[in-house]
Amino acid sequence: MHAEQLFTGISQLATPRGRFALRGPAMREIDVIPGAALAVTDGRVAWVGPADSWRGTSDVITELGGRAVVPGIVDPHTHAVWAGDRLADFEARCAGVPYEEILARGGGIRRTMRLTAAAPMEELVAGAERRLRALIQSGATTIEVKSGYGGTYEAELASLEAIAAVTPLVPARIIPTLLVHVPPRDTAERDAYITMATEQLIPEVARRRLARAVDVFIEREAFSLAEARAIFEAARDAGLPVKAHVDQFHAIGGLELALEFGAISVDHLEASGAPQIQALAASSAVGVILPGVTIHLGVNAAPGRAMIDAGCAVAVATDLNPGSAPIFSSQLAMALAVRVNELIPAEALTAATANAAAALGLDDVGRLAEGQRADFLVVDGEDWRTMVYTLGGSPVAEMYIAGVRVT
Amino acid sequence: MHAEQLFTGISQLATPRGRFALRGPAMREIDVIPGAALAVTDGRVAWVGPADSWRGTSDVITELGGRAVVPGIVDPHTHAVWAGDRLADFEARCAGVPYEEILARGGGIRRTMRLTAAAPMEELVAGAERRLRALIQSGATTIEVKSGYGGTYEAELASLEAIAAVTPLVPARIIPTLLVHVPPRDTAERDAYITMATEQLIPEVARRRLARAVDVFIEREAFSLAEARAIFEAARDAGLPVKAHVDQFHAIGGLELALEFGAISVDHLEASGAPQIQALAASSAVGVILPGVTIHLGVNAAPGRAMIDAGCAVAVATDLNPGSAPIFSSQLAMALAVRVNELIPAEALTAATANAAAALGLDDVGRLAEGQRADFLVVDGEDWRTMVYTLGGSPVAEMYIAGVRVT
Repeated sequence: MHAEQLFTGISQLATPRGRFALRGPAMREIDVIPGAALAVTDGRVAWVGPADSWRGTSDVITELGGRAVVPGIVDPHTHAVWAGDRLADFEARCAGVPYEEILARGGGIRRTMRLTAAAPMEELVAGAERRLRALIQSGATTIEVKSGYGGTYEAELASLEAIAAVTPLVPARIIPTLLVHVPPRDTAERDAYITMATEQLIPEVARRRLARAVDVFIEREAFSLAEARAIFEAARDAGLPVKAHVDQFHAIGGLELALEFGAISVDHLEASGAPQIQALAASSAVGVILPGVTIHLGVNAAPGRAMIDAGCAVAVATDLNPGSAPIFSSQLAMALAVRVNELIPAEALTAATANAAAALGLDDVGRLAEGQRADFLVVDGEDWRTMVYTLGGSPVAEMYIAGVRVT
Repeated sequence: MHAEQLFTGISQLATPRGRFALRGPAMREIDVIPGAALAVTDGRVAWVGPADSWRGTSDVITELGGRAVVPGIVDPHTHAVWAGDRLADFEARCAGVPYEEILARGGGIRRTMRLTAAAPMEELVAGAERRLRALIQSGATTIEVKSGYGGTYEAELASLEAIAAVTPLVPARIIPTLLVHVPPRDTAERDAYITMATEQLIPEVARRRLARAVDVFIEREAFSLAEARAIFEAARDAGLPVKAHVDQFHAIGGLELALEFGAISVDHLEASGAPQIQALAASSAVGVILPGVTIHLGVNAAPGRAMIDAGCAVAVATDLNPGSAPIFSSQLAMALAVRVNELIPAEALTAATANAAAALGLDDVGRLAEGQRADFLVVDGEDWRTMVYTLGGSPVAEMYIAGVRVT
């Protein structure tokens, strides 16, 4: 074999195995190849294995100096497009002010929506770019970004246009999602809102290919099961896969409904109990856990350990957003999954790579195997576990996306 | 007034007030000066106030572009000198292996001590430098570093020599502490160990000025009250202030003993109850909380909120160490104090600056006021609260130490 590039001097190459989402015990059965080499051609992995079994030639050899290599992190759940800040809310909440009062003061998510809907496109793009660069700096090579703070037809399209505009500005692959996030305050307007979303917004988003999936926030304080069903039906009609925010505070059936529509992921899951875990384990969906929210808000953790033990496929994400998750590091989210959700390090690596890709419907990133995109990280150390062990600071020494060094 | 440098374009300058440690409600009464300017001469703050009240001249004017400024972070509790790693222990612990079994396998703190005692000086210095650079990158301008993994007379001196050797290699101010950390496994050797520490090690460290304070780990599994008393007496005889690791797992009287010896700080405090909090509030000591340990080990949090409400002076630190706190960001420790120990943002800023300095016996860093060292951070944003809000990523855009830009 002849390759464009050969990477040698890899103390360990650690990668999830298999294809698609890895479930239950398969999450921990990662390959750890000591003394590895990695061949790259045309931005994809051409060969990976022990260096002494490489028999090919290459145009360029890059010696990595005895450091570990892991796949680039995939962050499958962020809300990186917003305007304004929530610092006053943060301070108020720390001082014990209830969220209802923060909302009444003009803060909370309604503030972010007001400012996002009013922001010029340049501001939306600049803010998203800054945040995405922080996630990339932490090791993320593929990042999902949701709309959802626009609210109106026009403002949701503007958020998705901002995602499209930021995509060529950053080196990571960006996956856009339409999120139907917050129902109108006036309950009399809810039906009209659902009609707008299902008859105008979703078809237009699909027509313009502005999102790869449709997400909906199903919760007592957000959209009902009936409303979510209408959203899912519209997504199906438009040919878009679905995912959902479910069981964040109450398990009201959102997970089960999303699975009925073949959701590629169900996200949050802090309130999921045994019935939800069983249903997820029996499905093809990935459960996305968000440990940063648990740390930031001091709320319950999603039962990551129980989910894996029951045979679920679990992924981890930052949930980057201004109110409940100011988590500007995808690596930190992975590291927190061990501390907060009781994953072991190998499971956390799988959750942040192969399973995170599956949560986005992607099968060409998230592992290092022939044919995969050559998105990988050179660890600042000889042991891949440094990636999960480190809190604060950065265990990433170098990052390659499609075989090109970007940091 | 004529100053060497004037910094303008400061959207907000936020700093603790007063002198020495700030107690109880004074911790939240920080100054936030909008539209500020900061004058620096000879590495010290010459003037600080609203820009429009500056009446002097300066050699150089640096425009900071409408960003916030805060004092450099002081990290008053780290164990940054060690050799080897604890990644296998980390993985075992995540999988549920008890610490006793990890020790029996040759892991745990005994592994770090074995490797540290055997490591060449270059390795100790290089490891410490790498870790200190990570803390500095996060915003720390003054960092305490303890010995304590050497164990023997020679190896403890070697750790302190490593701290002395790394000091000129990094831009932050480094404050060395002698930590009497781990008693001999063989209880018959304990008396001889205390004799070595009190009659040889502490006098020699004082004579060679290798440490600014003596610390001891008081706990059921570590040193007893009687042993700690002997250590404290030797420190007093040698003219060194004392501090102590107390109430980490059990409140066995370590806090009260340390206060009896006028400790400058008592650290950990996870098991402190009302009597300990009252005693601390009535003392001149600073209580140092370590939220990263709580996150990493999943153990109890120190009662930071109750301590401040009772009138204590609270500081926050990383506790950077390979076993219980792989926390490579002093900013993250400050941010976690809000999430883990229920501080409000202004208290967390004071805990990580003025009070952290007081925990080291320093009164010339930790606030921005005339005569203080010009150690300050330019925030990546116009609101100082970004410093405490941000989890992961870095809210620090620029760092100045003694008036010189270092990042």
